[in-house]
Amino acid sequence: MAIYKAPVRDMQFVLHELLEAETEFKALGFDEASSDLIDTILEEGAKFCESVIFPTNRVGDEQGCKFDNGHVTTPAGFQEAYKALCEAGWMSLACDTEFGGQGLPNTLSVFFEEMLQSANMAFSLYPGLTRGAYVAMKAYASDELKRRFLPKMVEGTWSGAMALTESHCGTDLGMLRTRAEPQEDGGFHLNGTKIFITGGEHDLAENIIHLVLARLPDAPEGTKGISMFLVPKFLVNEDGSLGERNGMSCGSIEHKMGIRGASTCVMNYENAKGWLVGEPNRGLHAMFSMMNHERIMVGQQGLSQAEVAYQSAVDYARERVQGRAPTGPKFPDQPADPIIVHPDVRRMLLNSRAQSEGARALLGWVSLLTDREERHTDPTEREAAEDLVALLTPVVKAFITDMGTEACNNCLQVFGGHGYITEWGMEQLVRDVRISQIYEGANGIHAMDLVSRKLPMHQGRPVRRYLEFLNAFVKEHAEDQELEEFMAPLGEGVKRLTKATEWLAKAGAKNPDEPGAAAYDYLRLMALIAIGHMWAKSASIAVNKVDGDNTGFYRTKLSTARYFMKRVMPQTLGLLASLTSGSDTLMAPDAEAF
Amino acid sequence: MAIYKAPVRDMQFVLHELLEAETEFKALGFDEASSDLIDTILEEGAKFCESVIFPTNRVGDEQGCKFDNGHVTTPAGFQEAYKALCEAGWMSLACDTEFGGQGLPNTLSVFFEEMLQSANMAFSLYPGLTRGAYVAMKAYASDELKRRFLPKMVEGTWSGAMALTESHCGTDLGMLRTRAEPQEDGGFHLNGTKIFITGGEHDLAENIIHLVLARLPDAPEGTKGISMFLVPKFLVNEDGSLGERNGMSCGSIEHKMGIRGASTCVMNYENAKGWLVGEPNRGLHAMFSMMNHERIMVGQQGLSQAEVAYQSAVDYARERVQGRAPTGPKFPDQPADPIIVHPDVRRMLLNSRAQSEGARALLGWVSLLTDREERHTDPTEREAAEDLVALLTPVVKAFITDMGTEACNNCLQVFGGHGYITEWGMEQLVRDVRISQIYEGANGIHAMDLVSRKLPMHQGRPVRRYLEFLNAFVKEHAEDQELEEFMAPLGEGVKRLTKATEWLAKAGAKNPDEPGAAAYDYLRLMALIAIGHMWAKSASIAVNKVDGDNTGFYRTKLSTARYFMKRVMPQTLGLLASLTSGSDTLMAPDAEAF
Repeated sequence: MAIYKAPVRDMQFVLHELLEAETEFKALGFDEASSDLIDTILEEGAKFCESVIFPTNRVGDEQGCKFDNGHVTTPAGFQEAYKALCEAGWMSLACDTEFGGQGLPNTLSVFFEEMLQSANMAFSLYPGLTRGAYVAMKAYASDELKRRFLPKMVEGTWSGAMALTESHCGTDLGMLRTRAEPQEDGGFHLNGTKIFITGGEHDLAENIIHLVLARLPDAPEGTKGISMFLVPKFLVNEDGSLGERNGMSCGSIEHKMGIRGASTCVMNYENAKGWLVGEPNRGLHAMFSMMNHERIMVGQQGLSQAEVAYQSAVDYARERVQGRAPTGPKFPDQPADPIIVHPDVRRMLLNSRAQSEGARALLGWVSLLTDREERHTDPTEREAAEDLVALLTPVVKAFITDMGTEACNNCLQVFGGHGYITEWGMEQLVRDVRISQIYEGANGIHAMDLVSRKLPMHQGRPVRRYLEFLNAFVKEHAEDQELEEFMAPLGEGVKRLTKATEWLAKAGAKNPDEPGAAAYDYLRLMALIAIGHMWAKSASIAVNKVDGDNTGFYRTKLSTARYFMKRVMPQTLGLLASLTSGSDTLMAPDAEAF
Repeated sequence: MAIYKAPVRDMQFVLHELLEAETEFKALGFDEASSDLIDTILEEGAKFCESVIFPTNRVGDEQGCKFDNGHVTTPAGFQEAYKALCEAGWMSLACDTEFGGQGLPNTLSVFFEEMLQSANMAFSLYPGLTRGAYVAMKAYASDELKRRFLPKMVEGTWSGAMALTESHCGTDLGMLRTRAEPQEDGGFHLNGTKIFITGGEHDLAENIIHLVLARLPDAPEGTKGISMFLVPKFLVNEDGSLGERNGMSCGSIEHKMGIRGASTCVMNYENAKGWLVGEPNRGLHAMFSMMNHERIMVGQQGLSQAEVAYQSAVDYARERVQGRAPTGPKFPDQPADPIIVHPDVRRMLLNSRAQSEGARALLGWVSLLTDREERHTDPTEREAAEDLVALLTPVVKAFITDMGTEACNNCLQVFGGHGYITEWGMEQLVRDVRISQIYEGANGIHAMDLVSRKLPMHQGRPVRRYLEFLNAFVKEHAEDQELEEFMAPLGEGVKRLTKATEWLAKAGAKNPDEPGAAAYDYLRLMALIAIGHMWAKSASIAVNKVDGDNTGFYRTKLSTARYFMKRVMPQTLGLLASLTSGSDTLMAPDAEAF
């Protein structure tokens, strides 16, 4: 069976030692987010996710959501778990106190979210989407809408959903057809059908607040004619009580590869009453403000499943005896050695661990940058944070979800045949994590976003800033002999990333196909450097603490950092060669030749 | 929905042009395997697999096998499909005429098997295991057993199963506990429980012939005390009619990630009557003779699913309109362009295609080597073939199944959100193909087999022979300007493989952990060279035929070869660097540190 214990110690390392979170939080005006509070949240969050949420994970997959005549029933235990989540206040960590939230930093909430996603990724989508809807509404909704809807959403009594996709358009939202007709009362009537609406209908919350993208009658064609509307399942009376059922219904739910405990709905809006959120025809802009948050969260889903897979595989590899160590029996009195003695089993485990811990550090750092972007008092710092968040969000989303699938598959492999059998729980992880590469923008779209929008942004300022930052980091530690084994490979990697960036700027100027052809390799190259940076930074902390540490924590940090530098970083060689080979190999064949 | 049209033209290319099969077959004494017969088998096999077998694939996954009180019911349509398969004689292509087979080359049968596996991988396991049992029995069973059992197995009236794994041992068969007690009539009584027995029980055949590994009472411990027994579900009377039910029963079937139409059985043997096959205590040796065949077949499963995934994704990418080409609208009169205009979609498709077609060529070549190994009149040629088969079997098994999973995932990704939805059929491919990386020896075990057994074999003769062969091939074409773009990268790759091989020989002599630590990277490196060799050879044929070819076939061969050389081959850079970084990064951490 899959096992999960929240990696509290590693989270503490990232928050306290790597990010120096308490100091950062104080500077950003989060006065309450003390070191003690951070630890309390991590420890209590861990207990809650391990004991209340994780037990719902297998049954959620087995039962899935059930659809009957417009109603969706979530799997056994989901209602109780959701109630407990709301009552303990876990929904509201990073929400504003103005709406009943706890006003804590996003960065702290993100670590709780990792645990929640590890414990049950399908379940975590219901609060996750509510949080996303909260973010968008907080930024764009009128005060009246905020007042009426946000407190209930912060409590979790009402949940949120994002309604973008239609059957003929997902990536290319410019083609969407759902229509919004203005009514005399200042509201709108929405008509259309949306698909793939996660949490569009379910039995966990009293009301479900949809943020729906639709076109006004006079809207221009394409993406510049899309507006965002708040469309609640039940209308809300002046006093905040629930009124009549709105003109919207769930037509069916999808049968999916995984996340079967999450309802994926076809939603029909028939004269559904809605309210404009933000400006007319600026809906996509508003939606993206929420989607950046969602993208980091989806990136984290890759990590969350990789963590469970890793822990489960380590447990199995320590227990399962089979064969002998290459250097001779380690347990001569047993019929065989545990398979963790085998170098190739360790390769699968360490690859998962090195990528996961690196990803956790990176997610923590990018989350901190989002807090800085929003709250730093110095506009120069805000701009710097904004640049890096813009640049790294697609990297985090795409690479960490790719890594998650790779890690879950590697860890399943450690189980041999048992990994393929449902009751062991490993194949569920592979199925569940797979969606994270697809939704919130398929990973290829993020690669395109990186090379086509983020690289040229502000005449290349974000990527220049990042490369300078990395070079400064390497230079800062250049004299330290103890760190050379980490800084040298990182420095080489940064050179390769710089070369790739320069090549792309030149090649892209001549041929519009080049950015797209290089995009995926480029994103992966940048991701390996970003994770490598986190490992080098982690190592720079660990070398000073390894003496006298009797837990082995820092020794393991150093050995895992070494693994990353020697056995993962070399991939950057091939990526640079592949991406600079140009677009001809991709573009030469006619569509008919495929 | 997934679609499948058997790639007859590409199979013809491999057989007729790349392998010059007719000439080869004649030299090996397969006088009937003319060029015409080859084409007939490919064309009729294609029709059969597309129209009779492929329609059972989705329903097989949806229904799965059902277990009730020892009985296993296969999904709707499987019985009819199996009957049609037997009646048309597809089971017996490469079986000896002596037992009612058609006596055709293994190499030809293998191409039919690819189609059968593409059409329904789960279904293909029933005839596949029968064929495997046939191979082992033909080599090791007594004439009496052969006479009594093989003709019915060649017909398909009776099927075969391999019973190796027990709950506490899979890879490490030395620990197996099933016992065989000699009886007065010269037979044996078997007692024990086996797990993961594919096709151990089902409703397709009148009898099921198990080859069971078990220990004789006086057997030495470990792998040298294992014998192989033929244990039929129903005893067989002297006249060949079925007698009483044997003392064996299916205790349950597994719920699995995929291949749900294949029964995966727990088998209980209780005083089951069995007959020794081969010599006492030499059962593992006999089983491996069958497993080499099975391993090539399992490698091919990776290709088979990649092919269906590729065809389906190309179809979708041509139909689905979304966004615009980077160079400007290709279909300005439509609301958007088909997604096949996007470089990154092409990357996912071409990566699958380049690896699949390369794998098909490699599988064809290795299969031809198995025919040569068995039948060539010149013992030097037999030895050469044997060396290459031994070396390349683990490469084929592990790499092509890894590639299959990668390709199916990439092709699912092309579908975006629809890829994750069951009804589209793509996620089934990902689930089905995943087992091929695990069974018949997990891929890591094959990597170990390659570096620890195959490299040192005959003082390194097989790998030396292969490297010499590759170098000679590159040299042969060195003067050809037109081929430089293919031969130069291949030549570089061969140099890297040579370096890796030399490094491994030295490092492994000093530290027994090195081979295992390098194994996976080394196998992948050799595989990329092996596939690269096939692409360079394919290109050397295509350059001479591209002029005047109005089908585009040879032009596409060349462009796909270019893709492989420029965008896949560079991975060898990172693999060499990673594997020569040594085992320390893997072996340093204690088991507790994970």
